Amino acid sequence: MTAGLPAEVGIVEVGPRDGLQNESTLLPTATKVELVERAIAAGARRIEAASFVHPRLVPQMADAEEVLAALPQRDDVEYSGLVLNGRGFDRALAAGLREINVVVVATDEFSKRNQGVTTEEGLRVWAEIAERAHASGIRPVATIAVAFGCPFEGAVSSDHVTELARRIADSGPYELALADTVGVGVPTQVHELVGRVREVTDAGLRCHFHNTRNTGYANSFAAVRAGVSTLDASVGGIGGCPFAPNATGNIATEDLEYLLSGMGIRTGMDLEELSRTGAWIGERLGKEVPALLGRAGPFPSR
Amino acid sequence: MTAGLPAEVGIVEVGPRDGLQNESTLLPTATKVELVERAIAAGARRIEAASFVHPRLVPQMADAEEVLAALPQRDDVEYSGLVLNGRGFDRALAAGLREINVVVVATDEFSKRNQGVTTEEGLRVWAEIAERAHASGIRPVATIAVAFGCPFEGAVSSDHVTELARRIADSGPYELALADTVGVGVPTQVHELVGRVREVTDAGLRCHFHNTRNTGYANSFAAVRAGVSTLDASVGGIGGCPFAPNATGNIATEDLEYLLSGMGIRTGMDLEELSRTGAWIGERLGKEVPALLGRAGPFPSR
Repeated sequence: MTAGLPAEVGIVEVGPRDGLQNESTLLPTATKVELVERAIAAGARRIEAASFVHPRLVPQMADAEEVLAALPQRDDVEYSGLVLNGRGFDRALAAGLREINVVVVATDEFSKRNQGVTTEEGLRVWAEIAERAHASGIRPVATIAVAFGCPFEGAVSSDHVTELARRIADSGPYELALADTVGVGVPTQVHELVGRVREVTDAGLRCHFHNTRNTGYANSFAAVRAGVSTLDASVGGIGGCPFAPNATGNIATEDLEYLLSGMGIRTGMDLEELSRTGAWIGERLGKEVPALLGRAGPFPSR
Repeated sequence: MTAGLPAEVGIVEVGPRDGLQNESTLLPTATKVELVERAIAAGARRIEAASFVHPRLVPQMADAEEVLAALPQRDDVEYSGLVLNGRGFDRALAAGLREINVVVVATDEFSKRNQGVTTEEGLRVWAEIAERAHASGIRPVATIAVAFGCPFEGAVSSDHVTELARRIADSGPYELALADTVGVGVPTQVHELVGRVREVTDAGLRCHFHNTRNTGYANSFAAVRAGVSTLDASVGGIGGCPFAPNATGNIATEDLEYLLSGMGIRTGMDLEELSRTGAWIGERLGKEVPALLGRAGPFPSR
């Protein structure tokens, strides 16, 4: 089995965006910047640092520009911002980002509630933004949300997601991410969908898992086995699910690092530093984070 | 990948034993009996209901005989008890159990601390008890503890565990279980060890995972893929780890059921009933259980 695994996997730290966006506690700009700085110290080199959504809808991200302006500029660190529409792209461009993440939602109902457009309209928005991004020298990542199931429409077929991926591929995504936005997927589903999407695009494949029902790490393992090169994770496993108030958030960067490094896969992350950062952000948010490494401690011999 | 998975997997409910044994709250006998009754109502058919250890060492299990005497007797439900020595076997025999679980610890240091003997002496104890069990018509299960790593001795090699399994197999175990007692294993390790142990015994293979570092469900997936027919789990994920006071316990039966049923694997369990039982035992223990299904809710369409 080890033979089928890659030597390294990239991790995109999404705690500053997807993590904080789903926490009820509003943090000061300086704390958000410190979170990014600590993630970098722990080895993060790709960081989703902000979301360009309307401040009235997501007050946690109202200071996106201020956060980005205060981040350390390093040649070896790339920041990205979430973009849902043309206005968001304008802001990302003005903020000087060189990478953006555009969300296309796989189901109409979730798409309308999340960004006010149908899936079909979302595909058009993606194509427009991708074209503008390419023209501006910005790398456009496309994320297909609720790719493994939707809280409103239920099951989402791999046929449907594969077709969306094929159409997204027409606009040349830098990377294509499959998101289990509400944490319902299982490993066999991940394996099948990744295999099918791979056939319709040459873009790098990335997965975004939530551990809402404790399948997030098993899904990560399945994704890596299926050839996904990059995984999203949030330090501490902060975040949550707007559709299940008590549910946990993204898979935790430290726990993912434990899993991957234990299988001999390099990520460039430092487990102890990640655990410390997870504990630190938990204190800032006034909660015990879902990550388990900080509670259990690393396994000494590994 | 689905093609390589079994149509069904057995689950042994170990909450009444490994779960409660590692909880600081002492529950009344009647509550322990109710936990078993609720597990049966949720579909459990194999239940590890007690541990025959000295009451001074494990006060949580002091009423083992009383619990067993009060359990419903059903033709379709099998109870088991944990046995560490000859005295424990005498008690299991007197209690009328038809199945016992004998622990052989893979490292000397953990073995001495857990049951006062070296690994070599533990193998002899197993052989003696297995012989007595066979003579009495009792099914002897052997569990190799800390098979994936030891908190005192560190890494445990698959060579060593495979050799232990080969020697255990000489005494005809009804089933051989590999236990990640402190929750340090990763899927590649599970895959390799299960494959190797399979070559030295005809006994059914079983795995016992803790989710201490969030690898328990990924390990369960790897074990099932590798041909393990039975997994241990505790409802609610109750329990813990005596070596990491804040760590979580066994993998949770409801979350395991979500994972397996989502992949089309039958276990005979009822997800909603399991979630209710997990919430109930959490109330009895005065804590939020680690199981996530109870917080997130099932995925409606599945």
